[in-house]
Amino acid sequence: MTILQAAAALRAGKTTSRKLTEEAFARIRALNPRLNAFLTLMEETAAVQAARADDELSIGIDRGPLHGIPVAVKDVFETHGIRTTCGSKLFASYVPERDAAVVEKLHAAGAVLTGKTSMHELAFGITSNNPHFGPVRNPWNPEHIPGGSSGGSGAAVASRMVFMAMGSDTGGSIRVPAAYCGCVGLKPTFGRVSRYGVMPLDFTLDHMGPLTRSVRDAAVVLEAIAGPDPRDETCAAEPPGPCVPEENPSLEGLRVGWPENYYFDRVAPEMEQAARQAAEACGRAGAEIVPVRMPDLNAYNLVARVIVQSEAAALMERYLDRRELFGADVLALLEQGRLLSATDYLNAQRLRRMMQREFHGIWNHCDCLLTPCTPTGAPRLGATTIAVGPEEEDVRLASTRLVRAVNLLGLPALSAPCGFTAQRLPLGIQIIGQAFEEALVLRVGQAIEHRLQLKLKPPVA
Amino acid sequence: MTILQAAAALRAGKTTSRKLTEEAFARIRALNPRLNAFLTLMEETAAVQAARADDELSIGIDRGPLHGIPVAVKDVFETHGIRTTCGSKLFASYVPERDAAVVEKLHAAGAVLTGKTSMHELAFGITSNNPHFGPVRNPWNPEHIPGGSSGGSGAAVASRMVFMAMGSDTGGSIRVPAAYCGCVGLKPTFGRVSRYGVMPLDFTLDHMGPLTRSVRDAAVVLEAIAGPDPRDETCAAEPPGPCVPEENPSLEGLRVGWPENYYFDRVAPEMEQAARQAAEACGRAGAEIVPVRMPDLNAYNLVARVIVQSEAAALMERYLDRRELFGADVLALLEQGRLLSATDYLNAQRLRRMMQREFHGIWNHCDCLLTPCTPTGAPRLGATTIAVGPEEEDVRLASTRLVRAVNLLGLPALSAPCGFTAQRLPLGIQIIGQAFEEALVLRVGQAIEHRLQLKLKPPVA
Repeated sequence: MTILQAAAALRAGKTTSRKLTEEAFARIRALNPRLNAFLTLMEETAAVQAARADDELSIGIDRGPLHGIPVAVKDVFETHGIRTTCGSKLFASYVPERDAAVVEKLHAAGAVLTGKTSMHELAFGITSNNPHFGPVRNPWNPEHIPGGSSGGSGAAVASRMVFMAMGSDTGGSIRVPAAYCGCVGLKPTFGRVSRYGVMPLDFTLDHMGPLTRSVRDAAVVLEAIAGPDPRDETCAAEPPGPCVPEENPSLEGLRVGWPENYYFDRVAPEMEQAARQAAEACGRAGAEIVPVRMPDLNAYNLVARVIVQSEAAALMERYLDRRELFGADVLALLEQGRLLSATDYLNAQRLRRMMQREFHGIWNHCDCLLTPCTPTGAPRLGATTIAVGPEEEDVRLASTRLVRAVNLLGLPALSAPCGFTAQRLPLGIQIIGQAFEEALVLRVGQAIEHRLQLKLKPPVA
Repeated sequence: MTILQAAAALRAGKTTSRKLTEEAFARIRALNPRLNAFLTLMEETAAVQAARADDELSIGIDRGPLHGIPVAVKDVFETHGIRTTCGSKLFASYVPERDAAVVEKLHAAGAVLTGKTSMHELAFGITSNNPHFGPVRNPWNPEHIPGGSSGGSGAAVASRMVFMAMGSDTGGSIRVPAAYCGCVGLKPTFGRVSRYGVMPLDFTLDHMGPLTRSVRDAAVVLEAIAGPDPRDETCAAEPPGPCVPEENPSLEGLRVGWPENYYFDRVAPEMEQAARQAAEACGRAGAEIVPVRMPDLNAYNLVARVIVQSEAAALMERYLDRRELFGADVLALLEQGRLLSATDYLNAQRLRRMMQREFHGIWNHCDCLLTPCTPTGAPRLGATTIAVGPEEEDVRLASTRLVRAVNLLGLPALSAPCGFTAQRLPLGIQIIGQAFEEALVLRVGQAIEHRLQLKLKPPVA
């Protein structure tokens, strides 16, 4: 069931928020011991919220499609009175005295908050193999990673514990777990969603967005969480317009860009095949598929990594005398970040502006881009490399190299399921749009979802 | 004569732009060999512009108060077809193919551009003792510096070569030469004036503004050069309102802040005395003088210096293998900047945001601040230290420590003459206002100028 289906059932009297919430916790109790998707459960407050949601609906107070729907947020979002760890030992007992803006907005929309999802330590990695709180596992195969850093959110949504879980994305951390777990992940435009109350990894690359079971659900959540917030000065002043696509949208008149280079240079053949199916779906929906030449995205990725390592090091430097509190991978990235010079960082930010201008030229040729989200399906838990065709690549670099540049550019990007590997692991298509054009990106995603009609029930669910 | 007086004389038929321009070049020819205020003269194009200005006025085309007025710009402003050195050997033969936005706006206002003024190498210093193009000298005493980095602009305006010269200010480089040379200098709010086509020292601290002979003239120039510019993305979208104050403005109802600490902790007694006279002038104009507690501005200065050294090093790094092309002082600052880490820089920018919030609290207590611009009058040419009361201080640090924090904050600040040292060197009062409140700052400056009625004709003029 999707959010929109559950919302209809609630209003038709076929279910209640209490019932949906009880079912959610039943599934969490059954599956979480195997998947480790949740770090903290909020069963008591969720029950109160569900009861209130039912009471409100019964007297005609309707807060919209999220009203009464069980959801979760990644443990990077501050929750008033509820521990918020950021997946780190440093914050293992940190209890915020405020809610993140996104949490406030979810409450205002009537959503039922079931708990906090597991994540890669400090959101600084792609595996969600957390040394302090245990690895998160992929519901399609628990010996594989769910991706990260929002791995708990991906596993929770894909295994149907909750209808939606919020993630954060600095270099792919929403889109990669969405792709690896077979659900939908939306990284909105930088500035679309307030970062207030989110524990930062980075000042200029962090984005907040939902993981859901359908494209239309992602749109529903975006409408609820987006909009201006004076407490986050990078938050855009313009509220978003309606962005929920029709069930079967037409893409007539749309030019969908298909990368001629870079994106398919090193991906598994099954990934290329799945992406082609998504493009064909767009074509059947009326879009024109146009070949597009990409700039040197390896350089974009390098610039993004210099920025994130510098900014993360600046944020965490004061804790680095307590090395034993960090996992080895995160510590190494932070120590590398400390070695970068001010001129390295500033030149990376200067290159970033040039790259933003350069990439903008692509929109003369197309309205959005269709690319693979990752080169392969989910790597095995504990693996440091993964085979991409004949080559072995570092898991972190391979998993992020098709998505990271979008953070540098601040553009909206959706990951939606588009097929499976031979081992029945999901694969995701990435749809990249122009700034603040989430509605277009979601429409294309919906056209693909509607036409592919993939069966997305994982074995552990 | 001021711009406004010359503008009236032009319209009354008492002079012509040709005549004003010829007089300007006569003075430049007579005085520049001693003062070195100009690096490049543009006598031929100026004659054409003056003739056109006269022709236009004769047929009723009136471009406003700068129409037909001889002016100059610091050699940091790009001028199409005219060498723009930035005071550096690196750019000794650089001929831009565009005009800076400010130069465009001066042309559009009908001003006559007489040439490019001398400056501290790369605008990275306070003495204007340029090793490549020779020292600029102070018209009040050529054995003293004019201040910097806009030293040529200060000397040219104070010695009456031109009515106005544009400067740039990253850590005091408009206000300090204005104070040392006995003229008016305005550093507008960050974002008020386009930086397009200005050779940068820094990405986030550079400001463009005029040096003039009167406060009202500074306002006239600001009205001409300010306003939005899509080519400079930090440029504010709002155009400024009218800001030329009345001849004898009332300050009734205004709270003028008088710092209780920091600003008078280490200044020459004659500077404190002159500042008190300026405050009394404000009081006589109707203002209430209120004591104000300052935050730790030494920390603000340190943060500003980390930022400027990092950003300047990032800009100049690619030239640093040609060490022989740099003066020793500038090279040392750039080399220090290269040693700063990305985390140093990022933490400085984070502290800056905290300081901006902290300083903003001051505006609960007053509408503007009155402070000394420098601790003393102009230091001797070649001196590395200057006596401030019983102590010897580094010339650069002493000259900038009362003005640099304002760049970090991005606030508007005016330097206006307020008295003299025993050696008859001018002293300047600094008026700091809230963001985009140039009109208020100029009104206070005008009240001081009108009531002090200082005689500001230097010996070399």
